Amino acid sequence: MATLTVDLGTRSYPIHIGTGLLGDSQLFSAILRQATPWVITDDRVAPLYLRGFNQSLGIPVSHHLVLQHGEQHKDWHSLDTIFTFLLKNGCDRDTTLIALGGGVIGDLTGFAAACYQRGIDYIQVPTTLLAQVDSSVGGKTAINHAYGKNMIGAFHHPLAVIADINTLGTLPQRELRAGLAEIIKCSLISDEDFFFWLETHLEQLLVADPEICQHAVTRACGIKAVIVAEDERERGRRVLLNLGHTFGHAIETALGYGEWLHGEAVSAGIAMAAELAVRMDWLSISEYHRIDRLLERTGLPRRPPASLSPSQLLESMRNDKKTRHGRLRLVLPKAIGKAMDTGDFDPKLLHDTLAGKPI
Amino acid sequence: MATLTVDLGTRSYPIHIGTGLLGDSQLFSAILRQATPWVITDDRVAPLYLRGFNQSLGIPVSHHLVLQHGEQHKDWHSLDTIFTFLLKNGCDRDTTLIALGGGVIGDLTGFAAACYQRGIDYIQVPTTLLAQVDSSVGGKTAINHAYGKNMIGAFHHPLAVIADINTLGTLPQRELRAGLAEIIKCSLISDEDFFFWLETHLEQLLVADPEICQHAVTRACGIKAVIVAEDERERGRRVLLNLGHTFGHAIETALGYGEWLHGEAVSAGIAMAAELAVRMDWLSISEYHRIDRLLERTGLPRRPPASLSPSQLLESMRNDKKTRHGRLRLVLPKAIGKAMDTGDFDPKLLHDTLAGKPI
Repeated sequence: MATLTVDLGTRSYPIHIGTGLLGDSQLFSAILRQATPWVITDDRVAPLYLRGFNQSLGIPVSHHLVLQHGEQHKDWHSLDTIFTFLLKNGCDRDTTLIALGGGVIGDLTGFAAACYQRGIDYIQVPTTLLAQVDSSVGGKTAINHAYGKNMIGAFHHPLAVIADINTLGTLPQRELRAGLAEIIKCSLISDEDFFFWLETHLEQLLVADPEICQHAVTRACGIKAVIVAEDERERGRRVLLNLGHTFGHAIETALGYGEWLHGEAVSAGIAMAAELAVRMDWLSISEYHRIDRLLERTGLPRRPPASLSPSQLLESMRNDKKTRHGRLRLVLPKAIGKAMDTGDFDPKLLHDTLAGKPI
Repeated sequence: MATLTVDLGTRSYPIHIGTGLLGDSQLFSAILRQATPWVITDDRVAPLYLRGFNQSLGIPVSHHLVLQHGEQHKDWHSLDTIFTFLLKNGCDRDTTLIALGGGVIGDLTGFAAACYQRGIDYIQVPTTLLAQVDSSVGGKTAINHAYGKNMIGAFHHPLAVIADINTLGTLPQRELRAGLAEIIKCSLISDEDFFFWLETHLEQLLVADPEICQHAVTRACGIKAVIVAEDERERGRRVLLNLGHTFGHAIETALGYGEWLHGEAVSAGIAMAAELAVRMDWLSISEYHRIDRLLERTGLPRRPPASLSPSQLLESMRNDKKTRHGRLRLVLPKAIGKAMDTGDFDPKLLHDTLAGKPI
């Protein structure tokens, strides 16, 4: 097991990454102390892990809620289902929630914990690669709104993140690939060596080799933990973690939630960000090809769906949270291992990129 | 104008209390700097103040949203109306909201600001006595849930509170009286002299005499500001501000929101807390009579509605946020000017109090 710390002073918390952690009752009870937690999960994770998890932790059957899976359910309705469940069970401010599932469950449970009685504790137990390397770390929680992804939410850090690498063994191939998009993103913004390591270990990652996956998750979480500790509220450097996300969120919002996986949209977003960076002479064409090639080998999309026009995408991008004072901002790669946030780009070059004009 | 400070280190903020402040564009522009704010108000406040307020601040007509008034609208539906309004207008993270109205508008706007894009700025401009002395100060924001009042919310402090005493001149008598309940509560928990001052100035308060009201609001806010600065998250002394509220919330939840005003329910709650304190030999009978008499002179209820049985009230109290580890806790007066939080009381004495058995 590897353990990292997100260093936030008195609110610091550990990230434990290893195999078989779902059954490690000692690890959980050290975090929970006496509290009997309430587990929030979904109908894809529950059949695989809920029973064993509850048994090893000694959680009564009544202490869990199974929601419908999928990004289209990351909404007020699911949130209210959690609130009603907690209120009907008389849960007070000393309640601790456990988010057992992917990014949707983590975001929903975290936001519910942020708002229930103005804030209760929760633990992130991510079971998808995407959640293990991205959404479970950093305290960002949210639900979607018809007018934009993650528009309603809170910063609310968990007591701990416990990532069991074994759960990746049951993950559908498509989701594994989507999770790799966020790992590739991490390497792109701050670690060229890691990018090279990903190029050389991709085949093992694609078959969810536990040792290789543990290394990749630990390294990606390490990059994210350092950035979050530096800039918890995304006033500065944390914005770099949004590489590919303004493009990606635009795809997700315009398509409707649940069509593409988040990681797939981010992958297309990374490719477009890299393309725009080449057009702006920020990034060399050879580095662009390395990025594009790694995404291709991972089996990820590098273009938005053909059904979305450049103007639809642009409209959707303008409503993303990354605008400041009404001005669209983008994170773009300067090199492999280096990215920057900018509001200063030629709209024509952005349009060419959205339209898929050859570089 | 009186100015107090809620001392929270880097998140400290001022409370300005005076007459004619709604038209004081300098005061607002010093807080807003360049931002053009978005005003959230309701259909009772808008006809009275919105136009003049927008004109003196130079706020465009499109920059306001008018919600339906009343506690029954402090719910997800209204919150979502605010989110949709902001998203349709392309509001980004640099947006500042102004809550122009009573406690419902303040709680809704504050919670919307807490969640919109994970947190934006807002200013409290309370126009009711209750909001000026209680809900606008301290950063508690929330919406109601069918299973309990203020169950879903956040701690999110405003940039400033600006209380214009002139607005009390248009306040219905019933709401003025309800606001006095919270002022009486403030005096009861920490300031016997202030309680005496209220006894001697009640007639002027009941006709909304500006000078007397400004004094009362300033003193009540001063008491609250000190307690909030000491215990922002209600882990200790802040709980004393809930005197009368566990009883009061139970009445509001059991009756359905909007039947009784919050201050009316709190008044009945204060009377019951004092009654229980007498039964427990915490409070002298003579002090109890002074409290009961002041509430009576203010024209406030001192008993729950006859339609609610003791068991209904108890059931509703058990679901309030003040339970800890499943155990009901109550704030009770020890004397005029002193209150304590306790989980240690005889259930029979509580039942006698809820049943209205003579002391």
